[in-house]
Amino acid sequence: MSNFLRTGRKIIAIGRNYADHAKELGNAIPKEPFFFLKPTSSFISPGEGPVEIPKGVVMHHEVELGVVIGKNGRDIPISEADSYIAGYTLAVDLTARNVQDAVKKKGLPWSAAKGFDTFCPIGPFIPKAKITDIAQVGLQFSINGAVKQSGTAKDMIFDVPHLISFVSGIMKLEEGDLILTGTPAGVGAVVAGDKFEAKMTYPGIDGEVLDQYEFEAVDRKGLYEFKG
Amino acid sequence: MSNFLRTGRKIIAIGRNYADHAKELGNAIPKEPFFFLKPTSSFISPGEGPVEIPKGVVMHHEVELGVVIGKNGRDIPISEADSYIAGYTLAVDLTARNVQDAVKKKGLPWSAAKGFDTFCPIGPFIPKAKITDIAQVGLQFSINGAVKQSGTAKDMIFDVPHLISFVSGIMKLEEGDLILTGTPAGVGAVVAGDKFEAKMTYPGIDGEVLDQYEFEAVDRKGLYEFKG
Ligand SMILES: [Mg+2]
Ligand SMILES: [Mg+2]
Ligand SMILES: [Mg+2]
Repeated sequence: MSNFLRTGRKIIAIGRNYADHAKELGNAIPKEPFFFLKPTSSFISPGEGPVEIPKGVVMHHEVELGVVIGKNGRDIPISEADSYIAGYTLAVDLTARNVQDAVKKKGLPWSAAKGFDTFCPIGPFIPKAKITDIAQVGLQFSINGAVKQSGTAKDMIFDVPHLISFVSGIMKLEEGDLILTGTPAGVGAVVAGDKFEAKMTYPGIDGEVLDQYEFEAVDRKGLYEFKG
Repeated sequence: MSNFLRTGRKIIAIGRNYADHAKELGNAIPKEPFFFLKPTSSFISPGEGPVEIPKGVVMHHEVELGVVIGKNGRDIPISEADSYIAGYTLAVDLTARNVQDAVKKKGLPWSAAKGFDTFCPIGPFIPKAKITDIAQVGLQFSINGAVKQSGTAKDMIFDVPHLISFVSGIMKLEEGDLILTGTPAGVGAVVAGDKFEAKMTYPGIDGEVLDQYEFEAVDRKGLYEFKG
């Protein structure tokens, strides 16, 4: 599964899975999980180049624990969900926040707001054995050296087995699929010229560094422009 | 590209691209295209089994022309879009209409409503050379022998080159990706026990049959239930 970036066919991203983050955007705490899809074309690995901010877009960072699926499954019971996990990865669910706000008001899909090229910075595969208690995964996000997000997976509203079961009741999970499990509070804008860093630690925010990477943000050229 | 079903990594589905269909659901005619993503796990080919209706779901049919992408591209000018087309396919964008109505009201993603397993019936690859004028593609959808949808691609609001260019300005297109180009008027419910047929003709609705297939609809068992 270390090649999930090339072979995986879907990214399922859970929304509002940390209560403090739901509140900071003025959203209610969900009673059941919900998710959206990001295209695998939005993956970018450290060293592949900068993250690009499309014209007119306010781009927000959301650092997230990614769960890499190891085998195909459908209607997976919560009690069996753990066996579908191949490993983990450190992801950033970049979001065109102003585009998202606009489509939410109109009842339109989130796919563009979440799916621009380079909107899914992603680290290498982390084998399952490295993390024996998911609740103790620490996530951190910094811009130009200043910490913006810092949280642990214990604050998830729906834990990983619950998410795997829920998603698999709607769409089958396949080897190499990636579930992004939501972001802790502290989201905000990354602007052109910023250098940002994502970090994953275990156990807890002061534990061993499992992954850490940096990207630069630049303005994107090209056809698209958000005009509000 | 005849193996796009196995190798393609995204399905980009355009919304409201036929004026009569936008109107029948009480929606405004879009000023620019918009789209959502369907997971490739929703593909089902004729002969693979029935289409499944999740519990509590009102499942609507939307017959669509699918465009299979033949090479990678980004920010593709409208004038060059045709060279990115490898061929076509006949698709049905099945939709959990009551789920979609509920998420539209709440400003939530469409991904679940559009992404259930079996929600993308799909025919074989049709080589590009079979269709010299996309506007003359005929699409038809019948339930238990009664025609429900019948239209031609000339009634698209945004034509295929426009769609390819628009999408590629947001997310890069990759070999094997599929663009669903919207549905003509006449959408409605398919219920368990129904047999439905999708048909693609050229030129026009009385032209040669390029593809034609049938599915049965059954109730889905399993974890998911839509409770409104
Ligand atoms: Mg969506
Ligand atoms: Mg997120
Ligand atoms: Mg459709």
